[in-house]
Amino acid sequence: MSDEHRDGIDLPDSALRGVRVLDLGQIYNGSYCGLLLAHLGADVIKVEPPTGESTRWRSANGASKPFLMLNSNKRGLALDLKQPAGRDILLRLAAHSDVLIENFAVGTMDRLGVGYDAIAKINSRLVYASGKGYSATGSKRDRPAMDLTVQADTGVLSSTGFPDGPPVKAGVAVADFMGGVHLAAAILAALYQRDRTGRGQFVEVGMQDAVVPTLASNLAGLLDGGGNVPERTGNRHGSLSMCPYNVYRVVDGWVAIFCMRDTHWAALCAVMGRPELATDDRYASQYARAQRMDDVDDLVGEWAARRRRDDCVAELAARGVPTAAVRHLAEVATDPDLFDRGILHRVTYPGVGETVVFGNPLTLSDSPTVMRRLAPRIGEHTTEVLTEVLDLPPDEIDKLRSSGAVV
Amino acid sequence: MSDEHRDGIDLPDSALRGVRVLDLGQIYNGSYCGLLLAHLGADVIKVEPPTGESTRWRSANGASKPFLMLNSNKRGLALDLKQPAGRDILLRLAAHSDVLIENFAVGTMDRLGVGYDAIAKINSRLVYASGKGYSATGSKRDRPAMDLTVQADTGVLSSTGFPDGPPVKAGVAVADFMGGVHLAAAILAALYQRDRTGRGQFVEVGMQDAVVPTLASNLAGLLDGGGNVPERTGNRHGSLSMCPYNVYRVVDGWVAIFCMRDTHWAALCAVMGRPELATDDRYASQYARAQRMDDVDDLVGEWAARRRRDDCVAELAARGVPTAAVRHLAEVATDPDLFDRGILHRVTYPGVGETVVFGNPLTLSDSPTVMRRLAPRIGEHTTEVLTEVLDLPPDEIDKLRSSGAVV
Repeated sequence: MSDEHRDGIDLPDSALRGVRVLDLGQIYNGSYCGLLLAHLGADVIKVEPPTGESTRWRSANGASKPFLMLNSNKRGLALDLKQPAGRDILLRLAAHSDVLIENFAVGTMDRLGVGYDAIAKINSRLVYASGKGYSATGSKRDRPAMDLTVQADTGVLSSTGFPDGPPVKAGVAVADFMGGVHLAAAILAALYQRDRTGRGQFVEVGMQDAVVPTLASNLAGLLDGGGNVPERTGNRHGSLSMCPYNVYRVVDGWVAIFCMRDTHWAALCAVMGRPELATDDRYASQYARAQRMDDVDDLVGEWAARRRRDDCVAELAARGVPTAAVRHLAEVATDPDLFDRGILHRVTYPGVGETVVFGNPLTLSDSPTVMRRLAPRIGEHTTEVLTEVLDLPPDEIDKLRSSGAVV
Repeated sequence: MSDEHRDGIDLPDSALRGVRVLDLGQIYNGSYCGLLLAHLGADVIKVEPPTGESTRWRSANGASKPFLMLNSNKRGLALDLKQPAGRDILLRLAAHSDVLIENFAVGTMDRLGVGYDAIAKINSRLVYASGKGYSATGSKRDRPAMDLTVQADTGVLSSTGFPDGPPVKAGVAVADFMGGVHLAAAILAALYQRDRTGRGQFVEVGMQDAVVPTLASNLAGLLDGGGNVPERTGNRHGSLSMCPYNVYRVVDGWVAIFCMRDTHWAALCAVMGRPELATDDRYASQYARAQRMDDVDDLVGEWAARRRRDDCVAELAARGVPTAAVRHLAEVATDPDLFDRGILHRVTYPGVGETVVFGNPLTLSDSPTVMRRLAPRIGEHTTEVLTEVLDLPPDEIDKLRSSGAVV
């Protein structure tokens, strides 16, 4: 039974209507994968241990902000996979599901008796999705991996920061989220293939592998640069071949400006009141400017230093120059545009109060994203799911609950 | 006709067998989206202007490394959409295709007469995918947007770097690639929905929207921190609530270490030869360590400073502590593991020589990734595609070519 019927709401059609997902995802990677499928209309059942997914406990109330952000539109089922009766429930649910997501350490699911082989035996149509730090087929499969360490391992750290400073992590969880969205893409591809073959399959994404493509410019600089391009270039272009490409200090903050084309440079020169620089041989071409990068950055920097951030951006954007304010997090977190378009939602969560959760970055004209529910409490829908999906009678559910196999 | 028949190679099944994609993608965002679909087995036709996609020209030979990295497994068709005859060819191809990808500035496709309305009229089954810097439904729709400026606008820059230093861009193209992979996920969801409805639809992903979820920890720090957490924390944890979480200098480089659990701390203490610290009240709990972050970082830093990078990682990883070397790009670019598993491929491109291109971070057990071809030259498959898909006679192709409508 799909969510929309159960809730009695007359929901529009959705891309994943009728698709049931067992989301054993944790922290960011697996949970974000499940969130995307939930926003696309799947019936996503978040399967947690009796104590709840660890991310809950970044706050003492078991409802940390990241947990709330990443688990909207999911139902909550809590079970103890270390008990045979708990494992049995998962296997029985798998028989009625289309997708299973897990991002435990390599080998954990097998040890619990719910690995791919066990699940595929029960339901050959199921897509079993495994999110890892490092692929289970690689030499680092047993390495514990977190966003920070994967960033270190894949060269993100080496590529971030200033040439004369230490390596710096990207301040956002690029490895976790690249892993999660790639895993969602792999699942969707496998579901599409199943429509033709009738069979599910095993899909896997390592965070390491998902991060590698983001290095395109850096790898090109390495391959082409003959060792002349520093590994990290601060806020300048990664191969130091384009200019202006930098972040400039203004009266009240910082502004990013990138003159990708010579026409952008001409527009910037006009705005700076220095139109003659656009045709000056020393600055007229991208190549020439890149040879005088310090000069050019000084010219732009001196102009910017006397201006206010938003004026600067408005003037340049009006002339088509790629530019943006370096916005503070607090500005992003309250950006009316992000709320109007449903990328962020302001919600009130019981016991927490008003907070902000993520909507759906995927816009599909025939699959509108509906916020059906907030992140579940631990075991909030255990009875509902066991009744509806497995048709378990109340006394059997009571027995499972009293033994601690479900919560 | 699908690739595998045309090439006469007995290819295994693939998730997107029989799916034809018109890839008007450019730079990283759209091109990466098309690359993922190509690696999943779709017949992806890269549609370029007669002068070639701009990314080619980051090298004087029209075969820049990033272009080669992002366009494997695609066929190449060059046409001039500003000529009525060129536009007509695109519309006719759209009638025989399943997906169209574009990431031009908002309004460009409409102005060329090949926007969503025009295409949907011709083929209601087509999924029309639009990659943008900012969503066409948002207030910034007309802003020129590049990876740097989107990072600035979404708070990635504010979140990256040290508290006493300037904002720093993530050194990798996180906005471009997050946009591209999300767009691929949107397309796959729409194809799956089409299997049920028989209809295509319009899908869109703004890079801005795709980046927002990566801020989960930072937003949580903002919402929970009451203004006490600095906007950027260098290589320390974003909310300064976990420790050790940092990058430490070693004899020959840097090492990332994250003690997520107290057991990790105990293991680190044992490796450091300081087992007593694991039970010392001042350091035993995550909370206690976070209160003495400078002390703890000094303790770990002094130990690390006397060790070699790879020894340090080996010792800690053996005990299950999340750790990794801060690897140089040159190490990533030559990592045997990445080549063995097909995440990177060493190829020889005519006129360029040996170089490195991207494989498929998505592993599907029933859709193995086959490297069928390298990135096309401009118009390499124009005749082949027009003959095979549109059944155009040679004289008509000649006429189109002599008028410059196709190349």
